Amino acid sequence: MELADLLGTELGTENVTSSRTELERQDYFDRYPVGDADEFAPRIAVRPGNLDQIRAVLRIAQEENVPVWTFSRGRNNGYGGSGPRAKGSITLDLSRMNKVLDIDTTSGTALLEPGVRFRDLYPALREIDAPFWPSVPDLDWGSVIGNALDRGIGYTALGEHFENLCGLEVMLPDGEVVRTGMGAMTGSRSWNIYRPGFGPAVDGLFSQSNLGIVTKANVWLMPKPERWAIVDIALDSDEQLARVTDVLRPLRFDGTIASTISAGTAGGVAAMLGTRDQWVSDGSPLPADFEQRVMSAFGVAAWNMRFSLYGTAIMLAARIEQVKTTLERQVPGARVTVMEYDGDAPLDEVREDHRTRAGIPGMYLEQMAGWSGGRGGHIAVSPVAPFAGEETMRLTGIVKPRFEEYGFDWLPSYHSRGRHMLMIGLILYNRDDADQSRRARELSRVLIQDLAREGYGEYRAHVALMDEVAASYDWNEHALSRFHTRLKDALDPNGILSPGKQGVWATASIGVMA
Amino acid sequence: MELADLLGTELGTENVTSSRTELERQDYFDRYPVGDADEFAPRIAVRPGNLDQIRAVLRIAQEENVPVWTFSRGRNNGYGGSGPRAKGSITLDLSRMNKVLDIDTTSGTALLEPGVRFRDLYPALREIDAPFWPSVPDLDWGSVIGNALDRGIGYTALGEHFENLCGLEVMLPDGEVVRTGMGAMTGSRSWNIYRPGFGPAVDGLFSQSNLGIVTKANVWLMPKPERWAIVDIALDSDEQLARVTDVLRPLRFDGTIASTISAGTAGGVAAMLGTRDQWVSDGSPLPADFEQRVMSAFGVAAWNMRFSLYGTAIMLAARIEQVKTTLERQVPGARVTVMEYDGDAPLDEVREDHRTRAGIPGMYLEQMAGWSGGRGGHIAVSPVAPFAGEETMRLTGIVKPRFEEYGFDWLPSYHSRGRHMLMIGLILYNRDDADQSRRARELSRVLIQDLAREGYGEYRAHVALMDEVAASYDWNEHALSRFHTRLKDALDPNGILSPGKQGVWATASIGVMA
Repeated sequence: MELADLLGTELGTENVTSSRTELERQDYFDRYPVGDADEFAPRIAVRPGNLDQIRAVLRIAQEENVPVWTFSRGRNNGYGGSGPRAKGSITLDLSRMNKVLDIDTTSGTALLEPGVRFRDLYPALREIDAPFWPSVPDLDWGSVIGNALDRGIGYTALGEHFENLCGLEVMLPDGEVVRTGMGAMTGSRSWNIYRPGFGPAVDGLFSQSNLGIVTKANVWLMPKPERWAIVDIALDSDEQLARVTDVLRPLRFDGTIASTISAGTAGGVAAMLGTRDQWVSDGSPLPADFEQRVMSAFGVAAWNMRFSLYGTAIMLAARIEQVKTTLERQVPGARVTVMEYDGDAPLDEVREDHRTRAGIPGMYLEQMAGWSGGRGGHIAVSPVAPFAGEETMRLTGIVKPRFEEYGFDWLPSYHSRGRHMLMIGLILYNRDDADQSRRARELSRVLIQDLAREGYGEYRAHVALMDEVAASYDWNEHALSRFHTRLKDALDPNGILSPGKQGVWATASIGVMA
Repeated sequence: MELADLLGTELGTENVTSSRTELERQDYFDRYPVGDADEFAPRIAVRPGNLDQIRAVLRIAQEENVPVWTFSRGRNNGYGGSGPRAKGSITLDLSRMNKVLDIDTTSGTALLEPGVRFRDLYPALREIDAPFWPSVPDLDWGSVIGNALDRGIGYTALGEHFENLCGLEVMLPDGEVVRTGMGAMTGSRSWNIYRPGFGPAVDGLFSQSNLGIVTKANVWLMPKPERWAIVDIALDSDEQLARVTDVLRPLRFDGTIASTISAGTAGGVAAMLGTRDQWVSDGSPLPADFEQRVMSAFGVAAWNMRFSLYGTAIMLAARIEQVKTTLERQVPGARVTVMEYDGDAPLDEVREDHRTRAGIPGMYLEQMAGWSGGRGGHIAVSPVAPFAGEETMRLTGIVKPRFEEYGFDWLPSYHSRGRHMLMIGLILYNRDDADQSRRARELSRVLIQDLAREGYGEYRAHVALMDEVAASYDWNEHALSRFHTRLKDALDPNGILSPGKQGVWATASIGVMA
C-alpha cells in the first residue's frame, strides 16, 4: 500500500493530506521560509485524534522508514512554522487533540491536550469564572503546550512558559506512554503541583526536543490579581537603556517586578503600527531621520521599556511606589508612566497593547510581519545574556553593524525574565523577495557565529538554522551534542521522530541531513 | 593488584580508606541506619581531587566490576547518609573538591565544586561583602550541590534548592564530561543565568540520579534585602492549621510570601529543645497531657506556623500589612507575631532559630535527632501534596494512626513552597535500639503504601526504602521506572554508578539488589 493509504486506514482518509496543493492550502509549509520553501517540505500530513492513532503513525513511519515531524498547531512562525527539518517527513498535526481536560481552581492549573490554543484556554477559564489568568505570547493562535515546549515566553509573572508545565504525558518513539513527575503514580493527587517527582527529573528532555511526543500537560496559571498596572519608561539612548537596566535589576531579582521587562526601539513601534513603505518609498535604507520622525509621529522614545506589576491593592501600591522611588533616586528625569487596572476590568477597557500583560489573548502584533511588504516574513537572532546594562551595549555592538551590512532595518527588542534577558534581533523581510530571504538567512548564520565567538548563544532557532546553532554549543568538542545523540539513539535508534529538531540527530539518521 | 592498591596508585594511598575500622571512624557508614548497618556497608572509600582522578575511579570500577556510590559530603542523614545502596560499593567522596570557583556579584551566582558546604559558601560571600544570601537547610555541614541534587529545601525565597542550580558540569559513567545549559558553549557569558540552553534540557536527569557525577554547578543566590521579617502564627488545632493554609494560599501564589511556609506541632518544639526522657521516664507512650505541658512550658501553640518576608523598606512594610490584613479579615483572633530585622543586622542580633531564614548557616536542629535517646536517629515519611487545608487533614488521617500503631511520637511538620507542600512525618528513634530501628523501617514501608493508595508520593527516600518508593510510582505498569532504566542502560550499561539510587537500576545490575 501507498503511505497515504496505510495512514488513511488507521486515521481515516479525512485525517490524511497528501497532495501538494492541499498541503500548501492547509498551511503545512513554513509560513516564513528563508530561501527555498521546498527545502523543508512535508510529504504528507496526518491528524491523529488519540494516542492509538499517534502510535499507529509512529509504527508506520518505522516500517516505511519515513521521518515524522510533530507539532501542535504549527504556528511556530519565524522558527519554521509547521515545516519539518527533514524534507519529505510525515507531519503529525496534533490540532485535533484539543481538549481542556481539567481546571483545578484550588491549585490554579489546567490539564491540556496539545491542540489547545491560547485563544481556547482563556474562554475556558472565563466560562467557569476561574480566578486565574493564563500567560499568553503576542499571538493567540498557537498551542499552549507547543509554545511552552519550544520555550516561548509571555509577559505576566509566569512568562517563562516551559517552567509552567508541571507533569507531562509523553509518547516515546516506540509508542510507550510515560507520565512524568508525580503523574507516574496511579491516582496521583499532585501531578499538577510538584514538578520533579521521584528520581531523575525528565521533563526537560521533552522541551526543544525530538525524544517524545507530549500528549498532555498540566499548565500553571497565575492568580488573577486584585489590581495590576502597566509601567512605561521612555529612554533617550542606548546608554540610558543600559543605565535603567542596571537600576531595575535589584527589583527584578527581589520579585518586586515579576513580569517580563521588555524594551523596544521607536523603529519597532513603527513596525508594530504600519509598514516600511510609509517611511521610504522603495527598498532603500530607512532615512537618517526615521527614528526621529517615528518619535514625533507616535509620541514614543528612542527606547520604550515596559513591564507590568500585580497584586492586592496594598501590594500593587507598594510596587508602584518602589519602582517610582528607585527610578527618581537613581535616574533623575526618568519619564515614567503608570496605568492602573482593576483585576476584573472588562475586556474593552483594557488597551489592546496592554492585554498580553493580563493574559488576554489576541493577535495585536500579527501585522508586524508585513513590515517589508509582500507576504511578509520574520526570523530573529535571539541571544541570551545576563540582565545587565553593559550586555545591551555589547550586543548592540556586535549585532547592529551586521544588520546594516546585510541591509536590514535595526528593530531590536529585549525581554528579561529571571536573571537573563533575550535580545530579539528581529529580521523583518519579504518572503516573496528571493534576495531578501537569502540575505535574512545569511545574516542569521553570520550572527550566530559572531555571537558565539563572544560567548552568546541562541535560545531557539529556525529549522534552517538549527544545525548551525547546535554547532555553536561546542564546549569539550561538542560534548552536549554528543550526549543528546546518545539519548536520541537510546530512545529512537532509527531516528524516526523529528530528526534534526534543535540539531539533534540519531546516529542512524545523519544521512537525512543531506 | 588489590582494589585498594589500584585506587591508591591513581589517587595516592592517603586518599583511599579500606579498613572497616577506618571506614566507620571516618563516617562512611549511614549515621542513622534502619536495621542492620551492614546492609549498606561500603567496601572502600576514595577521595579524588580532580576530574582525572574521578575518571580513574570509574575506569577501575568498570574493570573490576565494583559499583561506585558518589556523595559530596555524605550528610544526607535520614536518607542513608554516606551509605551506598549496593553493599560493598566503592564510595566516592567528593569532599576534597571544595573550591568556590567564582562569585558573580552582578547576576548573584556562585560557581561551586561539590565539596563546598553551606558553612563554606556563607563566609566566602561575606568575605567579599557580596550583596547576596545563600539559601541554607537546617544543618550547615552538608554540600550545597549535593543537597540541591537530592532536592533538599531551605527557607528563603530561593528555598527549592535544585531550582537554584543553573548549568552543571557532569562526568558521565564512561568518563565523558558535559557542561549543560549555556555552559555547552565555549566561553559562554550565560552559563550561570539561563537554565535551559538549546535543545533538550538535561539538568533534571542529574538530580536524585545515578546517571552522572556533578563536578561543578552554578548556584543562584538571593539578593540581600534591605529589611526582612519573621512571621509566626499560633494555631490551636488541626482545623485551624487547615483554615490558615487556605487563607495564605493566595498570598503564596501571588508572591507576597516567597519563603517556605513551615508549620510544626508543640511536640516538635519539645524535640527541637530537649529529649524525650524529660517528658516520660521510660520508653512508654508520651502522656496524654504532653502537648499541653509543652505549650505551657515553652509558650507555644498546638501548631506553630512560620514564614519570612523580604524586601525594601517599602515592600516589606506592604507585605507585613497585607499578611496582617488578610489574617485579621479571614481568621478573627489569629495570633500573629512579626519580628523585623535589618538586612545588615549583625549575626548576634539574629535569633538562632531565625537564622536559616536569612541564609545564615548553623547547626541549630542537630540535637533533635537525639530525642529518643542513645545515639539517636531519624528518618521521615515525606509525601507531596497540594498546598490546601483539606490535604493537611487527609494526610493526618492517614499517617497519624500508623505512628500510634507502631509506637512512635507524632511530630509532623509541613513545608510549603510554590503550589505544593511536603509533610515531613519525622520518625525519631534510637538507632541503638534494634527493635525501634526495625519498627521505624516497618512504619515507613507501610506508610509508603498507605499513602500511595491515596495518591500521595514521597519526594525523597532512605536508601533502605528507595525501591519501595520507586515501586509506588506505578502508572502504566511502572512506565517511568522503565524509562529511567532505559536512560540508565544507555549511559551506564554495566550499572556501575550508584546502582539503585532512587530505585533506578541498570538492567545488567539488577542482581546487585539481592
